[in-house]
Amino acid sequence: MPKSLNRQILLANRPVGMPKSSDFRLQETSIPTPSDGQVLCKTLYLSLDPYMRGRMSPSKSYAAPVEINEVITGGTVGEVIESKDPEFQAGDIVYGYGGWQDYWVLNGKTLNKVDPDIAPISTATGVLGMPGVTAYTGLLNIGKPKKGETVVVAAACGPVGSVVGQIAKIKGARSVGIAGSSEKCEYATNKFQFDHCVNHNSKKFSEELKSACPDGIDVYFENVGGKVFDAVLPLLNDFARIPVCGIISAYNATELPAGPNLIPSLMRNILVKRLTFRGFIVWDFASQEKEALQQLANWIKQGKLHYLEDIVDGLENAPEAFIRLFNGKNFGKLIVRVN
Amino acid sequence: MPKSLNRQILLANRPVGMPKSSDFRLQETSIPTPSDGQVLCKTLYLSLDPYMRGRMSPSKSYAAPVEINEVITGGTVGEVIESKDPEFQAGDIVYGYGGWQDYWVLNGKTLNKVDPDIAPISTATGVLGMPGVTAYTGLLNIGKPKKGETVVVAAACGPVGSVVGQIAKIKGARSVGIAGSSEKCEYATNKFQFDHCVNHNSKKFSEELKSACPDGIDVYFENVGGKVFDAVLPLLNDFARIPVCGIISAYNATELPAGPNLIPSLMRNILVKRLTFRGFIVWDFASQEKEALQQLANWIKQGKLHYLEDIVDGLENAPEAFIRLFNGKNFGKLIVRVN
Repeated sequence: MPKSLNRQILLANRPVGMPKSSDFRLQETSIPTPSDGQVLCKTLYLSLDPYMRGRMSPSKSYAAPVEINEVITGGTVGEVIESKDPEFQAGDIVYGYGGWQDYWVLNGKTLNKVDPDIAPISTATGVLGMPGVTAYTGLLNIGKPKKGETVVVAAACGPVGSVVGQIAKIKGARSVGIAGSSEKCEYATNKFQFDHCVNHNSKKFSEELKSACPDGIDVYFENVGGKVFDAVLPLLNDFARIPVCGIISAYNATELPAGPNLIPSLMRNILVKRLTFRGFIVWDFASQEKEALQQLANWIKQGKLHYLEDIVDGLENAPEAFIRLFNGKNFGKLIVRVN
Repeated sequence: MPKSLNRQILLANRPVGMPKSSDFRLQETSIPTPSDGQVLCKTLYLSLDPYMRGRMSPSKSYAAPVEINEVITGGTVGEVIESKDPEFQAGDIVYGYGGWQDYWVLNGKTLNKVDPDIAPISTATGVLGMPGVTAYTGLLNIGKPKKGETVVVAAACGPVGSVVGQIAKIKGARSVGIAGSSEKCEYATNKFQFDHCVNHNSKKFSEELKSACPDGIDVYFENVGGKVFDAVLPLLNDFARIPVCGIISAYNATELPAGPNLIPSLMRNILVKRLTFRGFIVWDFASQEKEALQQLANWIKQGKLHYLEDIVDGLENAPEAFIRLFNGKNFGKLIVRVN
């Protein structure tokens, strides 16, 4: 039975730099009622993802920003409480963009059913959801790793990085991860089968990355930018491919880094090494989503694909948990268990 | 009959910044003699191209640098004087990398015959040579202009820019050129059928470029970099393609531009707009060279493709002419007529 109230976390202020708890506020409202074609769901898991920081800024991006006093948007795994769409019935588990609240109503057409028999339903926020499909489509459509090539990805224990590294191995490439602690690097090599993992907080990070990539880098899956990118650029081989999926190091920046302006140097690298940089978001490959999810599920069943979740309890803890995404304190796919 | 001496222009010093006459020196040597498989040619035309500046620097690029006291490398149209390759005979007109000298010997396998019946033989250095094939392969393989899209290219009267603009029109796109004077812009719109051409020396260059591209930019063929790139970036549409063919504005730079470092801003654009940047050089599409040259020749015959040559007389004037490439004083494909 629904509780009598719906807790919601709203955007109180647009964050300046790193988000703070005071940028969010909690309110209680009544539980919404579904109209024809709509489905009422109870949130089970919130997915916390770096792209959500962009939605909290006013600047134009590929999606409209969250307005002040609006519920924070985000992917959610929910249980259907009441359905006015014949495709769904009470008790079904679904994934949709319900946002940071206990209950939500969405048009049934925007929801995907989650099959609890394949893997824990929380994986619909990670390896079997948007991050997994992002890794799959970006790596295979743009990165195109070939046997024996070297694939580098940062956030190696995160839901995108870990899947990129494992698919690279499945395709016969070498995978080199980058992560923010020796503990994460050990996990990446032990559980995600990275050939090497380099700690970007090491004082000798650039040298260590170079040692880990004796044949250079053929695919760099870009999700962080900043000093990692600076260390990668000189190691890129001729004809390297760089799917640009995110630049988390810049999401909280309040100003551009000091000079000189390195764009001419980057362009010279693009020209001389004939590099391909291509930005993408997962929706660009929407037609491949089903295939990607099936393949990822098969690899999980075959024991070829592993995942790691970092689960925080309580809707009210979502803001503090979200901040951990940007200081590297999460260890695996960050999820809030809500009900 | 061969003259008794061969004049050669050598690299005297590695240029620092803009090349100077004193970076070159002329020497006279004997005329070389072909061995088996080789061909002796007399230079008729030297092709002067921006990439040659890179060969004068010691830094690693896609080709080895010219050494001090070596003949400056470069494309040449020559007349066969003596052939020890059965594929060629005296009087044939050929294109090869003979360099800045009156006479040269090369293996016949490295030479292409030039057909004087298609167009003046000097065009083998431009529209029917490396620049034309560069424009054709880069635009069609990477830029992929579609009907109704907007294609922007700088150096609009140059041998690459003018061909890019005209192929864009042939493919049904709008073409917007950029050039360094109102005289060049008039030529670009009148003779090369650009829909608009914007003078990058105008104080209102950015605004004028924006006005010329009311629907944004779908393909930017990058051959200059610098302030042109800065003006183009905000106008790029989602999914725009940027073939990176050159960055002439940076070739003589002795230091990077002042900060801030704009790479995070560029990467954000790549991500949010899902841009594709891909560097290339003409050799990357070597398998398409024959097809490209045939198509370009057909378009010339059909009156769809025009070209403009800026011809300087005398081998000894090659250094001064070369410098004009970088101060924008050339007007069309820059060629030195040698003999």
